[in-house]
Amino acid sequence: MTREVDVAILGAGSAGLFALSQVKRETENYVLINGGELGTTCARVGCMPSKVLIQVAEDYHRKGIFERHGIEGAVELSIDVPASMEHVQDLRDMFVDRTLGATDDLDEAHLIEGYAKFVANDTVEVNGEQIKAKSIIIATGSAPIVPAAWQAFADDVITTDQFFELEDLPDSMAVIGMGSIGLEIGQSLHRLGIKVAAVDQLNTIAKLEDNEVNDVAVATIGKEFPLWLGEAATLEKIDTGIQVSAGGNQLVVDKVLASLGRKPNLDNLNLEATDIELGEDGVPLYDPLTMQVGDLPIFIAGDVNMDRPLLHEAGHEGRVAGYNAVRPVVNGPIEKFKRKVALGITFCDPNIATVGKQFSELNESDIAIGEIQFAPVGRALIMGKNRGLLRLYVQKSDGLLLGACMCCVKAENLAHLIAWSIQSGMTVFDMLKMPFYHPVIEEALQAALYNVLSKLDIRQDVVELERV
Amino acid sequence: MTREVDVAILGAGSAGLFALSQVKRETENYVLINGGELGTTCARVGCMPSKVLIQVAEDYHRKGIFERHGIEGAVELSIDVPASMEHVQDLRDMFVDRTLGATDDLDEAHLIEGYAKFVANDTVEVNGEQIKAKSIIIATGSAPIVPAAWQAFADDVITTDQFFELEDLPDSMAVIGMGSIGLEIGQSLHRLGIKVAAVDQLNTIAKLEDNEVNDVAVATIGKEFPLWLGEAATLEKIDTGIQVSAGGNQLVVDKVLASLGRKPNLDNLNLEATDIELGEDGVPLYDPLTMQVGDLPIFIAGDVNMDRPLLHEAGHEGRVAGYNAVRPVVNGPIEKFKRKVALGITFCDPNIATVGKQFSELNESDIAIGEIQFAPVGRALIMGKNRGLLRLYVQKSDGLLLGACMCCVKAENLAHLIAWSIQSGMTVFDMLKMPFYHPVIEEALQAALYNVLSKLDIRQDVVELERV
Repeated sequence: MTREVDVAILGAGSAGLFALSQVKRETENYVLINGGELGTTCARVGCMPSKVLIQVAEDYHRKGIFERHGIEGAVELSIDVPASMEHVQDLRDMFVDRTLGATDDLDEAHLIEGYAKFVANDTVEVNGEQIKAKSIIIATGSAPIVPAAWQAFADDVITTDQFFELEDLPDSMAVIGMGSIGLEIGQSLHRLGIKVAAVDQLNTIAKLEDNEVNDVAVATIGKEFPLWLGEAATLEKIDTGIQVSAGGNQLVVDKVLASLGRKPNLDNLNLEATDIELGEDGVPLYDPLTMQVGDLPIFIAGDVNMDRPLLHEAGHEGRVAGYNAVRPVVNGPIEKFKRKVALGITFCDPNIATVGKQFSELNESDIAIGEIQFAPVGRALIMGKNRGLLRLYVQKSDGLLLGACMCCVKAENLAHLIAWSIQSGMTVFDMLKMPFYHPVIEEALQAALYNVLSKLDIRQDVVELERV
Repeated sequence: MTREVDVAILGAGSAGLFALSQVKRETENYVLINGGELGTTCARVGCMPSKVLIQVAEDYHRKGIFERHGIEGAVELSIDVPASMEHVQDLRDMFVDRTLGATDDLDEAHLIEGYAKFVANDTVEVNGEQIKAKSIIIATGSAPIVPAAWQAFADDVITTDQFFELEDLPDSMAVIGMGSIGLEIGQSLHRLGIKVAAVDQLNTIAKLEDNEVNDVAVATIGKEFPLWLGEAATLEKIDTGIQVSAGGNQLVVDKVLASLGRKPNLDNLNLEATDIELGEDGVPLYDPLTMQVGDLPIFIAGDVNMDRPLLHEAGHEGRVAGYNAVRPVVNGPIEKFKRKVALGITFCDPNIATVGKQFSELNESDIAIGEIQFAPVGRALIMGKNRGLLRLYVQKSDGLLLGACMCCVKAENLAHLIAWSIQSGMTVFDMLKMPFYHPVIEEALQAALYNVLSKLDIRQDVVELERV
């Protein structure tokens, strides 16, 4: 028996739920199919619990500034790790509950718990039932990568899927992979008193393309705890634990956190039954402006497409996929929507953030770089966080801001101001006419804007003023 | 003997120094005349030392969250107030030194230390010398107000001019006046363990016009330490100290900090010798777009004009005054420059900020209000700072953002994002198309934008998406 629906959404994670919000505007004849546990990656094992851990670690680490500020007794402070982890889990549970609110009110006809497989371009099978849909949205998310060679240590190697379930933390841990997640968790573990080996085979952290910012980030964060960069890690099980080696470094640890990236959840979808064309990375080829896969009645949104694995991008892609997937219902054409300016934030301390175009997308001869070191930034100095570097990539010919890269305090906030400026099409001259309060971290951005002026092909006479 | 110069600037504070930067572009024939100590109000007794005190107090106060986060030993922490004050003074001295850099390299012909008096529209006298100028800029700043009736307690009443000089703090203090400065210092004193009576004859704090935000601010901040609002304070000298009474409240304190606002430094300028017309408040009438006083060769910039007593506005006004004051040298006309979008921040915790137009400038029937309570904001909850309210004032007819008022965590950063959006002429629809990362405080702004949509006279079909 085949059920016919307008839209079938595979995956009730963030992208799937945002898609659903668009679909529901036009039809009640949809089905949301979810394999595995309900609750989003973001709330269960991603953005949310990691930020709680970071906050706890940051509060504990702050004791290092107490003496400078006249606060006595920092040596008496200690961390009760199980209590900290319980706090992380309490908040995590609350955030998961909130995301479950989106599926709680769906009846059996609309929400199917089970793993869907394609049987044709327009049909999937789940729990023995065939469902034919005018459009199908793939929003099945991703899963952490664990190298096959590490299966031998399976009991001692965990990923973020297990990490936030730990009731206590081991005394020592290796964190393999210094992308955003590994860097955030590695630094937090160190701050909570865990002995950490932080390893990446690359010489960069948080996937930084800007060597100047990477150097500052590695120096600043590496001063706090050792980063083993540039050599792949090898693991060996010995009597006392897992011996982690990379280059000349070696440490025996209790557990290994694999933070080597994520792979798309595509393997069990039986894509072979469809006309989907796969790219070199095994991901369906799709138009990022429509989220449509080829010219099929199939759309793909969220982490599964391996493009921008971020909650707010999953939201954007889910909305676009949902909007276009439901067009047949209203006899409308598929539409193209602009992408948001790229924005990536690693919540380490100092934050690392990238905005807009990065070096691999820029022609270096066309750009001027405005930069500011954070050492003399007044407010950063007051906060005791005056370390870091902010670099702006500016079009030489007209001063248009194209991108930015930074490692500094409050980069998460600066990055929004910069991203919005880029998306609004602002030049550095436009930005210098905006209000910068005093003393605030935004003045570092102002200083970087001033820094670039003399490197541009054009000049303005009174940069900060706008004639009536 | 009369010296002739192109421009005479009265006051080497922030506004005077910004004016100088413009004047120097066109002429070397200027004179900067400064009465009293060199160094800006901002660096000596204003923005900078207050932020250091706030940072110390915030770090110490944070111990209140430690138990929730699994951090043990908070009860062992104590504050060494003289050490804290020494830290405040160390940084203050450094910031003052930086501002002195602007005058250090000026020779006697360019920098005169002394009090100038007008003898004509185009002439001042200082240290017995007459100086005739094509333009004169009044940038003499302001001084704290102390009611005449309090002269009887002169030894026990201080202002911010003396406060940051204290080597230790008294056990108890009254802070009279809950404007920005009083509120910032009062809360910090309380956090450092000083017994504080915080009084204002108004029922508002930080001059809030928005009653909803004021109520939240008073409730949140007043929960931490008692605010005595709505009744004027009376002081009485008794054996054990100064008895402060307001309404039904009474406390005996060691010292009183008067933070009742500031008055312009105009009294000794002998304005009677000029054709300057004064407003009702005794301040010269001037055009805020040119900074010119009447049609005289006189300009006025910075705190002395009693308009926007903020460093970044002193910078703007100084630049405009300097630019226009030096026009005669280049035979150019006086020009009008747009004002920046208004931005006011009180660095209490939670921050209070106002942006753009406030109620007294708005027609309530033309606006819709978008609002968000901070209790459920994810990131704020993680920080343990999920208290507060953000309100956006939006033009009903087209969704144009006109202003905002808020009391919440990181309002200082949100206020920049909002101010830049207003100055760029953005509507709430434009703003909802911008990237909001996750989980960040900027998502509270996003929620407030969503909140206003249903209250507007217009609709968009896919609010977050922009068609190619």
